[in-house]
Amino acid sequence: MNDVTFAVLGTGGIGRRTLEVSKHKDGLTPVAACDRHGVAVDHDGLDVDELLSATEGNIASDGGASAVKETGEMKGVAASTQAVSTDTPIDDIIAESDDIDAVLIALPNFEHDFIPRVADRFVDAGYSGVLVDVLKRSRVIGMLDERTETFEESGITFVCGAGATPGFLTGAAALAAQSFVEVDEVEIWWGVGLKSGYEDNRGTVREDIAHLPEYDINDAREMSDEEIAEVIDEHDGVIEFNDMEHADDVLLERAGICDAEDVTVGGILDVTSDEKPTTTTVRVTGTTFDGERGTNTFQLDDNTSMEANVNGPALGYLKSAVRRNRAGEYGVFGPAELLPQF
Amino acid sequence: MNDVTFAVLGTGGIGRRTLEVSKHKDGLTPVAACDRHGVAVDHDGLDVDELLSATEGNIASDGGASAVKETGEMKGVAASTQAVSTDTPIDDIIAESDDIDAVLIALPNFEHDFIPRVADRFVDAGYSGVLVDVLKRSRVIGMLDERTETFEESGITFVCGAGATPGFLTGAAALAAQSFVEVDEVEIWWGVGLKSGYEDNRGTVREDIAHLPEYDINDAREMSDEEIAEVIDEHDGVIEFNDMEHADDVLLERAGICDAEDVTVGGILDVTSDEKPTTTTVRVTGTTFDGERGTNTFQLDDNTSMEANVNGPALGYLKSAVRRNRAGEYGVFGPAELLPQF
Repeated sequence: MNDVTFAVLGTGGIGRRTLEVSKHKDGLTPVAACDRHGVAVDHDGLDVDELLSATEGNIASDGGASAVKETGEMKGVAASTQAVSTDTPIDDIIAESDDIDAVLIALPNFEHDFIPRVADRFVDAGYSGVLVDVLKRSRVIGMLDERTETFEESGITFVCGAGATPGFLTGAAALAAQSFVEVDEVEIWWGVGLKSGYEDNRGTVREDIAHLPEYDINDAREMSDEEIAEVIDEHDGVIEFNDMEHADDVLLERAGICDAEDVTVGGILDVTSDEKPTTTTVRVTGTTFDGERGTNTFQLDDNTSMEANVNGPALGYLKSAVRRNRAGEYGVFGPAELLPQF
Repeated sequence: MNDVTFAVLGTGGIGRRTLEVSKHKDGLTPVAACDRHGVAVDHDGLDVDELLSATEGNIASDGGASAVKETGEMKGVAASTQAVSTDTPIDDIIAESDDIDAVLIALPNFEHDFIPRVADRFVDAGYSGVLVDVLKRSRVIGMLDERTETFEESGITFVCGAGATPGFLTGAAALAAQSFVEVDEVEIWWGVGLKSGYEDNRGTVREDIAHLPEYDINDAREMSDEEIAEVIDEHDGVIEFNDMEHADDVLLERAGICDAEDVTVGGILDVTSDEKPTTTTVRVTGTTFDGERGTNTFQLDDNTSMEANVNGPALGYLKSAVRRNRAGEYGVFGPAELLPQF
């Protein structure tokens, strides 16, 4: 009864690692995964190891395929022995969704309205369950909010921004706020060292570049890998981000914790090293009921990778959302709304 | 519809300060409060300032009473103009409980089974709603668990251990665990400076003393104020606690985060200063899905008082519990179970 089945849309870095992390989680069974050209469904549970091998190009000897990178023929999910090739991967998952409790949308770096439109397709197909995304853009939340009534009618519990930041760090900020009756400022500062993990996380890096002042999401999507590499080279492989349009601001405001404008997000990405260039830290400054001002702090160990800090929380929020969904709570939720209320 | 009414059983330091903090919270209306000799009920909302004055001995000129400490005649709640004297304060609250969404049990330092027995009385009276306690003793959780089925049948959502520790820090540990697939160790270390707040928190200090190796809860309850003062003097006003039997261990285990034995709780209480003698810190050490070991850290600013860190979270968990209750989720919940699941 407490078992949760889930599907992953997208098997880039986030999708693949989420499947891997789910092996460590009790009561969480991945039953479907897709990328642009393939879909794998097994309602008894996917063979995650085989699927990971296929999607990483390190196909096992029994995998039945050889060239499996996400470019070229026989690429990605389609290379898995559990999969079939398809031109309609999301529709194929939707067709199976009666038996899927939750769907993790791990598709970074598309148009702003891409995730809302994916949700629409699930609504149109009569899906009733959980949708979770790991989006980073503040403005997408509003698009989802517009769909609240539709989600409520459909029986959909949508959790938006459930990765590391927003997600994990948003939740940490919401919890750290509990000392205070007024929150004055939330500062989220992240460090990511992404040398060996770079290939697996090109989509995330691309999306980060969209946060630089001189670029936007459309630029970043249309840039070639070479152009992305050039931007990185211009910064000698270490890029500092400030005042990012990260959804943490909107998500904390909607949970009633502070105004969006009181939230700042920044960080440093270093693709020349696996060491983090700076320690990921959340600082919440506020005033207590007895009139004292203070700053509570949440710090992630430098040894915890970006991947670990995205995928654990994404699945944690997913499980919580399934519980909410089964209790009949539908609509749009931010991570902070799944924590003790402020 | 999202408005929450609540009652407070007990108007010692925790009960009073919770009423005070609730003034800062949207949608949270205190409608009843009691101590041993008095009960105040107003379903439109208590006048918190007047009640606080009465229970603090600083009765307002219109309060109609003069000697209002919790000893002697006309003491405590009974001194409030909103209250009546009673020999059956809890029964009086229960009689009004049809219109009360949540009841905060802020009665420290009684027998182990005191809180479970209070819950029984609400069950017997047909109460359906939220009960929240701020207990600290691991062994009480089991007594509550035995009542799970009864709570489920009654429509009661019971949140146990929802203060600072357990409570706030348990939640922080549960959230910090999200980086990891295996949690090896949780260390909770608190600092409390309680000079000017000592009078208001004698019950809490008494309960802390019960955690010293040479005492237990029965000793601590039966000790006179002078004997408590002697213990404090023996330690020159600064008492260090190690390996406390704090419910954090059981509460993290029941949320599936780690074994109870992997949790240690300790801290330093200084009644000679309002400065914290040490910084309250939660350290969660674990292993990530990619095999790295690390320690995530949550620290409370030294400026945040024990009271702020008890009462904010207690009300935060209370509000979350009302939401669970309204969705039809009944039984016993620890704080960590109201966070993203592990």
